[in-house]
Amino acid sequence: DIVERLCATQEQPLLGQHWVITAGPTREAIDPVRYISNHSSGKMGYAIAAQAVAAGASVSLISGPVNLAPPQGCELIAVESAQQMHQAALTLAPKANVFVACAAVADYRLAKVADQKMKKTPGQDELTLTLVKNPDIVADVAKLADKPFTVGFAAETQDVEQYAKDKLARKGLDLIAANNVAIEGQGFNSDQNALTVYSANNAFDLPLGNKSAVAKQLIEIIARHFDES
Amino acid sequence: DIVERLCATQEQPLLGQHWVITAGPTREAIDPVRYISNHSSGKMGYAIAAQAVAAGASVSLISGPVNLAPPQGCELIAVESAQQMHQAALTLAPKANVFVACAAVADYRLAKVADQKMKKTPGQDELTLTLVKNPDIVADVAKLADKPFTVGFAAETQDVEQYAKDKLARKGLDLIAANNVAIEGQGFNSDQNALTVYSANNAFDLPLGNKSAVAKQLIEIIARHFDES
Repeated sequence: DIVERLCATQEQPLLGQHWVITAGPTREAIDPVRYISNHSSGKMGYAIAAQAVAAGASVSLISGPVNLAPPQGCELIAVESAQQMHQAALTLAPKANVFVACAAVADYRLAKVADQKMKKTPGQDELTLTLVKNPDIVADVAKLADKPFTVGFAAETQDVEQYAKDKLARKGLDLIAANNVAIEGQGFNSDQNALTVYSANNAFDLPLGNKSAVAKQLIEIIARHFDES
Repeated sequence: DIVERLCATQEQPLLGQHWVITAGPTREAIDPVRYISNHSSGKMGYAIAAQAVAAGASVSLISGPVNLAPPQGCELIAVESAQQMHQAALTLAPKANVFVACAAVADYRLAKVADQKMKKTPGQDELTLTLVKNPDIVADVAKLADKPFTVGFAAETQDVEQYAKDKLARKGLDLIAANNVAIEGQGFNSDQNALTVYSANNAFDLPLGNKSAVAKQLIEIIARHFDES
């Protein structure tokens, strides 16, 4: 009835939308036991996924290795490496309305992964690892002919605003959410975060709060810009 | 009274002993957000610590970053890097009776850790990381004038017995526990493990079982050899 529909409209503004969200770190294998990774906990991406579900969206969450329970009502696609995440993202993004690239994807992977555990060579005190560039997931999604509304993240330790605005323009994103991970108590592995969201012409400050609250505000900004796009 | 003492003797054979146990992986920083690590979950080391406490030992557990609750009754020393673990181990080991090096310590660390998050350089498709050798914790403990009874681990993906026996002799260990981490369902991140324990002249097979049961058997072998040493 009409009351139900009104409630749905008010409480589930994303009903009928498909969101694809990436979260967590990636792991780039060195050999069967060693890898390169980063300090991303996945908490921000999981909070965005949970809030998007709560707002009525159908959510696909592409997640690197984290220690978090997947939010109820999500489709979880578990991946390890940047290449695996790239493949999953490029498969799902063309049919999505919104793509949120929250994962901390490794920029580089090993040029060659060793089949067996690498052994220390007696007398060899140095070891050189040669890395090659990984595909740029969010840039490749933004280049799609049928691109979804595309939101990037910039986790930086310095010159945050400059890097974020540059990344927004260079990669053809619709929005970018920037945070300074060098500040204690926000960003990686924290339960709190503070973001500044940039569009081509505007900036929106989401002050320090728990990641659920910040995720809810971020989703409202995304939804407003998506509706206007 | 005598009954209490008998019970204590039977159930807590390690009463009065101080065991130092290392567990988990180490993390070697590349920059403020990236690091090199390995797939060690810490489960085996934590199981050994829990069983040693249950057997009456006073236990110091030096642990790299893991997602496990510390066993009750342990002193937990949380570290990140191999250098931090080395420092903690060399501080505690001289006063210990038994040292069990179960951690999967990074053989190499970055020659230079970047102060700020490394940025991709446009046009630069390759990146070279130069690594230098980390200190060898278990070898340095075994070299101490007042060395504890020293037990190493060898987690290998091939030629397990040969590597283990070589490591035992080369590093001056009293025992070494070897496992093949290439076999699915045992070793890293599994709840089960199978070990072969080598002394200079003997080998003891601990068949596949949950890590608590394997830890209990391992402790019995260590305790017997320690008593005879």
